[in-house]
Amino acid sequence: MAEHIYWEDFQVGRTVTLGEKHVTREEIIAFATEFDPQPFHLDETAAKDTPLGGLAASGWHSCAMLMRMICDGYLVNSSSLGSPGLDEVKWLEPVRPGDVLTARYTCVEARPSESRPNFGVCRMHYEVFNQFDRPVMTWDCTQFFGRRSADGSP
Amino acid sequence: MAEHIYWEDFQVGRTVTLGEKHVTREEIIAFATEFDPQPFHLDETAAKDTPLGGLAASGWHSCAMLMRMICDGYLVNSSSLGSPGLDEVKWLEPVRPGDVLTARYTCVEARPSESRPNFGVCRMHYEVFNQFDRPVMTWDCTQFFGRRSADGSP
Repeated sequence: MAEHIYWEDFQVGRTVTLGEKHVTREEIIAFATEFDPQPFHLDETAAKDTPLGGLAASGWHSCAMLMRMICDGYLVNSSSLGSPGLDEVKWLEPVRPGDVLTARYTCVEARPSESRPNFGVCRMHYEVFNQFDRPVMTWDCTQFFGRRSADGSP
Repeated sequence: MAEHIYWEDFQVGRTVTLGEKHVTREEIIAFATEFDPQPFHLDETAAKDTPLGGLAASGWHSCAMLMRMICDGYLVNSSSLGSPGLDEVKWLEPVRPGDVLTARYTCVEARPSESRPNFGVCRMHYEVFNQFDRPVMTWDCTQFFGRRSADGSP
């Protein structure tokens, strides 16, 4: 079993690869039907005449798929304490049925929490690519992790 | 039928109320199971010992629920041309089973697209509240809309 990851284990500047996600037409339509029922996320014909040029996943579905890759890649094996949010989400290219997404993240900053001695804070940069190695989405976000030394010593 | 909304119809500084969403335990768990399977989004007992203090929706589920409110509120009846992303997402308070969410948005900037004469750009601030009128989430994002005058005249 992989060793449990604490805040101290994140190395600033290191890029870590996450898993892979095969995007299906059925999933695109199912997510959009429930959460983002705009025509270009539901129907190929309707989408053709829009700037997306064809059926594409909701940007929120891209976010949800990345979140699953993050959980599977390391997060559920970590002392994750959630996130206060994101500084930036960029949707760069359409995500199509049949795309194979890969992702990676870089810890860009790590600091102890000022207010809670058992917490550490990381700022992360996430990148998602399609099978043509084109970036389709990036995130800049903040994540909280429990510290290995539960009494807060560095 | 409500009149179709174009870029020119958004008034800078005006706040518009969206609909309401009743959050269920089943939906929280279903979304988290597929997209964010961290224990505090899946199980009340596991969540009690975390800073969330009890079962709470994934922040990405909150985003997806707001997107549905946006679609139902006005977006599918507009000339929406998607979004390049968000400048900020803030997850301010846990979203619990049984919560009733309401939302509103304010157009903070509207300008014609420099590159595409048929497009207008709006920057929006979205706010989601729970039944105690506490803000649970905010977004700052950019949205594209088609212009009423398809030939690009102002």
